[in-house]
Amino acid sequence: MPETDYKDRVRESFTQQRVMQLIGANLALVEPGIVEIELPFREDITQQDGFVHAGIITTVLDSACGYAAYTLMPEGSSVLSVEFKVNLLAPAKADVIRVRAEVKRAGKTLTVCTADAFAGEKVCATMLATMIRR
Amino acid sequence: MPETDYKDRVRESFTQQRVMQLIGANLALVEPGIVEIELPFREDITQQDGFVHAGIITTVLDSACGYAAYTLMPEGSSVLSVEFKVNLLAPAKADVIRVRAEVKRAGKTLTVCTADAFAGEKVCATMLATMIRR
Amino acid sequence: MPETDYKDRVRESFTQQRVMQLIGANLALVEPGIVEIELPFREDITQQDGFVHAGIITTVLDSACGYAAYTLMPEGSSVLSVEFKVNLLAPAKADVIRVRAEVKRAGKTLTVCTADAFAGEKVCATMLATMIRR
Amino acid sequence: MPETDYKDRVRESFTQQRVMQLIGANLALVEPGIVEIELPFREDITQQDGFVHAGIITTVLDSACGYAAYTLMPEGSSVLSVEFKVNLLAPAKADVIRVRAEVKRAGKTLTVCTADAFAGEKVCATMLATMIRR
Repeated sequence: MPETDYKDRVRESFTQQRVMQLIGANLALVEPGIVEIELPFREDITQQDGFVHAGIITTVLDSACGYAAYTLMPEGSSVLSVEFKVNLLAPAKADVIRVRAEVKRAGKTLTVCTADAFAGEKVCATMLATMIRR
Repeated sequence: MPETDYKDRVRESFTQQRVMQLIGANLALVEPGIVEIELPFREDITQQDGFVHAGIITTVLDSACGYAAYTLMPEGSSVLSVEFKVNLLAPAKADVIRVRAEVKRAGKTLTVCTADAFAGEKVCATMLATMIRR
Repeated sequence: MPETDYKDRVRESFTQQRVMQLIGANLALVEPGIVEIELPFREDITQQDGFVHAGIITTVLDSACGYAAYTLMPEGSSVLSVEFKVNLLAPAKADVIRVRAEVKRAGKTLTVCTADAFAGEKVCATMLATMIRR
Repeated sequence: MPETDYKDRVRESFTQQRVMQLIGANLALVEPGIVEIELPFREDITQQDGFVHAGIITTVLDSACGYAAYTLMPEGSSVLSVEFKVNLLAPAKADVIRVRAEVKRAGKTLTVCTADAFAGEKVCATMLATMIRR
């Protein structure tokens, strides 16, 4: 698959994820099997202690994993989340939360990804996810 | 703990979760060990296929689990998510997504909860989560 | 699918799981979408505190989920575990650990199951698992 | 903590995990925050297709994670599994399954670990786990 193709496909799909605009997330890197997304801190995505809500961190981790899987899928595929698990490791408070997802194993039907969310230098959350090709 | 106390504590904390207003989620039920939250469908919380994003469903599932655990904790406690796992079972498309969380086991430090998200009558996602008392 | 068929298929496959004999697990119930397995306590399946090792509980939970999924699959299918998550809720110490697995959602390719392990009346572990049909 | 101490503590506890002898697992490496265990293939730990049962792989992954966490805990601590999630990535068939666990974040109460199981050069399973200090 030519490089421009998979990058374009990811960028186009990301734009269609309306929720990314709502929470203010930006696609920062797209490489084969790797995707990074950045989420600037905002008051309106926080939980009761003023940290970014674990579910919003998960929203970004999940999209990053999905698109990391998507970069390795044949054209015409679409990608869906089967399941994911997230461990919250530290408060998600930083000017920008940076998420990096990598494909751990790409299968014909299922792809397994891992992703970390960073608050500054510190990992604040980690995901292990299963994606399916449709 | 008097009934009004735990209900008030949950409602007050829920109001402080700024992200609940951003996505339009409402607290629907608070009982000992049980919490329900409703999320009306909106275009701006969707993913690329027009369904509610798995991460937004997770945001609601996580808050419902956290508050279900919170109802059983002594006054003066605060609750944090340790980790959760979500399985996506069906597209999250309905006028209202309804989430119901229940405490499976309440320990002194850790509480384990399960939660289902319903799109109409159909379970569209399910969570198994661990919460910690601080 | 005639009743005898799926029951026979599960019993035959269970017999081929050599590890079930090693740990002394018995198939106790096979119904459509439901499987129960019993594991009598033995010293040689314990961890350092004298409780049944979490991994052995998981072995039984996983087989129960796999076979619960299998009962609903067309003849000629085989079943494999994609992933599972287990929460340990209480020490696994009882004369018999009883495990009950149920299908939560049966799809064409993927089936999601839940299972509980009981030490006496108490749930000592719970699983949320994804199985795949091959 | 002197080096010999934590290594001795892990080796002593491992010896008390009776199930490790039953399945034939050996402690291969103990460093601060890192533990490796080896599991030679045997017919009596297999599932219906002749691969090592996912639950037995999990048994080794779980012990490796627990002991990796234990190496960083103060003397007099004991360690218990809170929960874990495992993705099965490839058939567990090799002369020796090698498992390597690493601490991802060590907290005062909870420690999060990751572990991979290798069948030859290939990762056949991966775990994300939460351990608690008692």
